[in-house]
Amino acid sequence: MIKNKLGIELPESIEGYGKVKAYQGAFATIPTGMKASVKQSYSLPNQSKLVASLSEAIVKSGLKSGMTISFHHHLRDGDGIMLLVVEEIAKQGIKDIHINASSFTNAHEGIIEYIKSGVITKISTSGLRGKLAEEISKNGILPNPITFRTHGGRARAIESGDAHIDVTFVGAPTCDSLGNMNGHEGPCAFGAMGYPMVDVQYADVVIALTDFLQPHPLRYISIDQTYVDYVVEVESLGDPAKIASGATRITSNPSELLIAQKAAKVLIASGLIQTGFSFQAGAGGAALAVCRYIREYMEDNDIKGGFASGGINSYLVELLKAGLFSRLLDVQTFDGTIAKSIHENIDHCEMSASMYANPHNKSCIAHQLDIMILSATEIDLDFNVNSLTGSHGIIMGAIGGAPDTAAGAKLTVMVVPALRKRLPIVVEKVTHIITPSETVDVLVTDRGICVNPNRPDVLAKLKEARIPLCDIKELYEDIKQLTGTPKKVECGDKIVGVIEYRDGTVLDIIRQVKS
Amino acid sequence: MIKNKLGIELPESIEGYGKVKAYQGAFATIPTGMKASVKQSYSLPNQSKLVASLSEAIVKSGLKSGMTISFHHHLRDGDGIMLLVVEEIAKQGIKDIHINASSFTNAHEGIIEYIKSGVITKISTSGLRGKLAEEISKNGILPNPITFRTHGGRARAIESGDAHIDVTFVGAPTCDSLGNMNGHEGPCAFGAMGYPMVDVQYADVVIALTDFLQPHPLRYISIDQTYVDYVVEVESLGDPAKIASGATRITSNPSELLIAQKAAKVLIASGLIQTGFSFQAGAGGAALAVCRYIREYMEDNDIKGGFASGGINSYLVELLKAGLFSRLLDVQTFDGTIAKSIHENIDHCEMSASMYANPHNKSCIAHQLDIMILSATEIDLDFNVNSLTGSHGIIMGAIGGAPDTAAGAKLTVMVVPALRKRLPIVVEKVTHIITPSETVDVLVTDRGICVNPNRPDVLAKLKEARIPLCDIKELYEDIKQLTGTPKKVECGDKIVGVIEYRDGTVLDIIRQVKS
Repeated sequence: MIKNKLGIELPESIEGYGKVKAYQGAFATIPTGMKASVKQSYSLPNQSKLVASLSEAIVKSGLKSGMTISFHHHLRDGDGIMLLVVEEIAKQGIKDIHINASSFTNAHEGIIEYIKSGVITKISTSGLRGKLAEEISKNGILPNPITFRTHGGRARAIESGDAHIDVTFVGAPTCDSLGNMNGHEGPCAFGAMGYPMVDVQYADVVIALTDFLQPHPLRYISIDQTYVDYVVEVESLGDPAKIASGATRITSNPSELLIAQKAAKVLIASGLIQTGFSFQAGAGGAALAVCRYIREYMEDNDIKGGFASGGINSYLVELLKAGLFSRLLDVQTFDGTIAKSIHENIDHCEMSASMYANPHNKSCIAHQLDIMILSATEIDLDFNVNSLTGSHGIIMGAIGGAPDTAAGAKLTVMVVPALRKRLPIVVEKVTHIITPSETVDVLVTDRGICVNPNRPDVLAKLKEARIPLCDIKELYEDIKQLTGTPKKVECGDKIVGVIEYRDGTVLDIIRQVKS
Repeated sequence: MIKNKLGIELPESIEGYGKVKAYQGAFATIPTGMKASVKQSYSLPNQSKLVASLSEAIVKSGLKSGMTISFHHHLRDGDGIMLLVVEEIAKQGIKDIHINASSFTNAHEGIIEYIKSGVITKISTSGLRGKLAEEISKNGILPNPITFRTHGGRARAIESGDAHIDVTFVGAPTCDSLGNMNGHEGPCAFGAMGYPMVDVQYADVVIALTDFLQPHPLRYISIDQTYVDYVVEVESLGDPAKIASGATRITSNPSELLIAQKAAKVLIASGLIQTGFSFQAGAGGAALAVCRYIREYMEDNDIKGGFASGGINSYLVELLKAGLFSRLLDVQTFDGTIAKSIHENIDHCEMSASMYANPHNKSCIAHQLDIMILSATEIDLDFNVNSLTGSHGIIMGAIGGAPDTAAGAKLTVMVVPALRKRLPIVVEKVTHIITPSETVDVLVTDRGICVNPNRPDVLAKLKEARIPLCDIKELYEDIKQLTGTPKKVECGDKIVGVIEYRDGTVLDIIRQVKS
């Protein structure tokens, strides 16, 4: 066993994952050597890329048992692509497939049967939810541990060669016959194509699936034809109504609004809300609500922000239109209804997951952030944060870009309720560490605000602004009085997940929960 | 010695160039293996890329004697970047530098002194003109032969690793502090950034030079920050008045207009001018004038073209605005006055040199062309074309995208005067082969139209349309009666240039001309 910087004990090597590199600190890894190289290719004049069926495209791709395929999750809960492809792969008798997806959503429960039948034996993802997550966490149906990566970490892993993709399947809301595509038009328009922008550059074979085939050359090109091998028309990419998910609405919950209001006060006190400041908020209810409160402050003080980044929602588009931010940098559009904004508004810019958050390119947007607002499932006395598993140890969320933006931002503020359904959110030790303490600055709950001791500068600012603060241990004791100490999770030996930090080192491991 | 498919004898290896691969046919090379990989990098939060001076940027880049630097030629005759950089390199005592530029223009005569002093010892380019070309062709001042590449071939060579770049210097008309840049705005706006889009992806170090530094993040991003190491503010990128060159104006020369008119008749007779057709014309006067004549036909017959590609001039922007083409695909904007069109008109799309014409990616625009119109300095009885040297053997032009588009287009039409200044343009053997005969279909001159015998289908169409045709040998004899047979060029042994085909094989070599 080895121990990482956070004191987590890790095996030196994990079957089905490989050698473990221990986390040494947020910016401890200095990459050396070369990135992955890609296969040579060529084209002939007027060569067609259109294939008659998905089945034919898979045959032409040379996909074989044991290989890795990849998907993006821009269609969110409406995604119809992953299951369509996996079903076809199963029909062809291909087995032992590794799926590397930017995330799994509620649309992917159907994967369970293909795991049970041995078609899918490995998964890499940013998150996992619902019954699929339970089956893996509790029943251990997947032979190999899941590799969990941040959005930036996934881009890094693909570029560095840590995560080789044999065939990527790109759901393309609009596509022409040579594979020029964008995500803004068509019946399943979802907006930015930030995740597949990375996959198409490094995968051996790129298959575009579209339900909105357009004449070549496409008008607005997010991914161009030089990266695409085959184009397949399918009946539908999925259910457009489910592309916008509930997680992106601004809350009306009074407790969340209270937290958001307090967080806004912290931001104002920090002195960072100045003309040109940059801002991102995660997808949680309170996180989004913070936008509403800082809007008032910005309007009252005539402050115009620089960029807002990340998953872009309709409220941010509203702020852009109102002139409160000068740019939106969009890796993933949270709401299909604003998909068109990208090509209608020159200040709403699409970016790749690498430009968004890869720590190992020449600069990413996450590293330019002034303010990051995040939610969590747990935060502990050391300020380590969990957003992937519940206190029951079961996988139920996603890493997303949280560790990327927390590391990059000047000020990272966690907005969480002190308790949820009688369970404490502030705990002694988080069940799993997703975002390490050194990158987390302030905790705002409905029962108190705490500052990470490694940020005396922030502490001083908040004290100066007379914001009532408390020690996180006091807050923890307070909450414990209400909730009692929850039972420790009982785990077996089987490792069901490996949590990588954005640089590819390991933060933590997830073991199967005893049921 | 080895002989290529065109019967040209080549040494097996050339000093200062390396092993020679003989040209085997337009699509004979099937690349295998992997493309070049690039160095790992990383960034820290809020890390600045701004350096105080070009001198400092060069020091930080680690540039050393013997290395390769690269430049784009989007600023054309107005380019002030190459000499600014070379001067600084010389000051730092760095020698033996290889310049890989997308082309050399009249702005680069000043390089002569740096060749003479040993600072520059090698050049790779698409073309060379004026005194610099003469000094190399006649006086042999450059120690190593020039490697001449097509625009598509240069992209291929960089991507494949054949042409490694240590440090690229990108003149950026608009740039922010992290290196997001575009070519459409600023005092030296030139339009599309097609050439450096390739360099920045593969060079070890990328230095952006700008005279129009903007707040981060830039509004319209053609090359993004993930590729850029350093940003340097310079006083000026060059002379904006010289960005539009005379080579891009439509001719008023009656003989050229006659040729253009005849060529338009050939195009119409070919049956290719149909709704959705794609079109490109080279930069010569007659080539551009063809656009004017097919416009009439398109308007009269209510035909709307698909895309027009390549170097985009103001006349094509006019055709786009008039709805005669649905898209412009722009690798290089020929006229600074239309630079803004790219972000004002969604149908005027920028593309990289790889997307334009690289034969070894998954599809390039050149391979989708219906019609290509090209000019030349010479064409011979086999339909081989020269556009790089004159009949005196001296380098005086550029390969450009001619061999790329000729290979890709369904119909390639050469538009040339039968003679220029009493010199025959139709000759027995071209002085050097740039575009091989198998990719050239029709020759249109003021004294006759000839069809390449390898295109009986085109011959039949033109005969059907009663277009008067002649045999190229007859035309040649006709012209010879007027011009006599020009003296053969006398060459020495020293090889001053190696002409690569787009796939990296060698078409021909250029030897020093005896003066």
